[in-house]
Amino acid sequence: MRYLIVFAHPEPRSLNAALKDHAVRALIEHGHDVEVSDLYAMGFKAIADADDFPARDAETRLVYHRASGEAYASGVQSPDIAAEQAKLLRADVVVLQFPLWWFSMPAILKGWLDRVFAHGFAIGVPKPGTRQWLRYGEGTLSGRRAMLAVTTGGREAQFSDRGINGTMGDLLFPLNHGVFHYTGMAPLEPFVTFQTVRTTEDEFTAMADRYVARLLAAPSEKPIAYRTENGGDYDAQGVMRDDLLPGQGGIRLHHE
Amino acid sequence: MRYLIVFAHPEPRSLNAALKDHAVRALIEHGHDVEVSDLYAMGFKAIADADDFPARDAETRLVYHRASGEAYASGVQSPDIAAEQAKLLRADVVVLQFPLWWFSMPAILKGWLDRVFAHGFAIGVPKPGTRQWLRYGEGTLSGRRAMLAVTTGGREAQFSDRGINGTMGDLLFPLNHGVFHYTGMAPLEPFVTFQTVRTTEDEFTAMADRYVARLLAAPSEKPIAYRTENGGDYDAQGVMRDDLLPGQGGIRLHHE
Repeated sequence: MRYLIVFAHPEPRSLNAALKDHAVRALIEHGHDVEVSDLYAMGFKAIADADDFPARDAETRLVYHRASGEAYASGVQSPDIAAEQAKLLRADVVVLQFPLWWFSMPAILKGWLDRVFAHGFAIGVPKPGTRQWLRYGEGTLSGRRAMLAVTTGGREAQFSDRGINGTMGDLLFPLNHGVFHYTGMAPLEPFVTFQTVRTTEDEFTAMADRYVARLLAAPSEKPIAYRTENGGDYDAQGVMRDDLLPGQGGIRLHHE
Repeated sequence: MRYLIVFAHPEPRSLNAALKDHAVRALIEHGHDVEVSDLYAMGFKAIADADDFPARDAETRLVYHRASGEAYASGVQSPDIAAEQAKLLRADVVVLQFPLWWFSMPAILKGWLDRVFAHGFAIGVPKPGTRQWLRYGEGTLSGRRAMLAVTTGGREAQFSDRGINGTMGDLLFPLNHGVFHYTGMAPLEPFVTFQTVRTTEDEFTAMADRYVARLLAAPSEKPIAYRTENGGDYDAQGVMRDDLLPGQGGIRLHHE
């Protein structure tokens, strides 16, 4: 299998980086191909702006998603964007690995998402012969599996079903559902480590082994069972059918 | 009152920017003070990295939150970070205004959050005389009101309680609860506009008036009633007491 790990941590000597290094070594030892986009090391441009479209008339008003779609369709994207898309297309398993900052990804990784997941590529992909979009279960990235790998200094109990932070699953819903499932990838349960600042060497070894086991299982693990948009559970407006779980609402509705 | 609008859109001729310009004019006409952090116009540094700590020994391993706390405590923060903190401290009402990209904020605004909400300032603030933290209802930014102002090209129905995207409230929970409430600010219901790419001039006027009305009401509006961490609803581990809403879980538990 071919793995893509998109890695966003500023310190190569961090626990997060050590996890990544360990994972890369182990995957290669198991005969897999691994690509790593180490966004900090690459100096990846985080800010989506007019400079992303060198071929565009700079005098016209920038509508980012439209410019993104035009650049994608005409093959004149910024080379760093096109390179990341090619990595995604080559991958069987996509991993976004990052420390949880303010309950989400660091800005450099959000910028990777804002820029690389272009219109026509990851969003705004028409479904041939219909007036529907390929999204939420279908898309350019269909056939891939995707996993968030997250470290946090927080305590596990505070991310539990009654924990004060909200559950990790609910907090990561915008990424698992709104990014992975949206673009056709099959989202796997996230790999999460808690209280990372207090990790002993033995704990690190156990943690790294657990990470490798999850990565090796990724091709065969059962994905999070989100409902597909065009699978009959939603009406033409993208709202869940009245007769399915009547009277219920909220994000957990979208799990089968 | 003094308003701070943190604005993150790459195009000054956009609908989002026009809303911001309209709001600033109206607030001033009503006798309020307004500061705007126009992150794109400022070229705000989005990426949290070692360059944020010029006084730090560059050879030592970077633990970002620790370096952030040390720089804050010793008054040697990067000037752009200190300037934004000063704006937050001067404000009565804090507004984060942005287009919704991948169900969250653009990277430049996430970077503002990652860098400006420093350790010791917005997180890791000890509660004097206790072993608790000032967070979730108490903090350096207590006494301020905070509002997300979001534009999206998506349809309202798809963000409704049974809409396929998940509800806007659930998607924005990590910001309203995990950022505003966490740091002591009183979160107001977000101002949201849908299907912005199809907006007519009349619709824009109505939208801008609705935005101004929300901003003018911000000091008196009833905030989102999240439970406070030290208010008795959570145990010492930060988990909701067993006898409160027994058997229930998920992020909506944290609303009173």
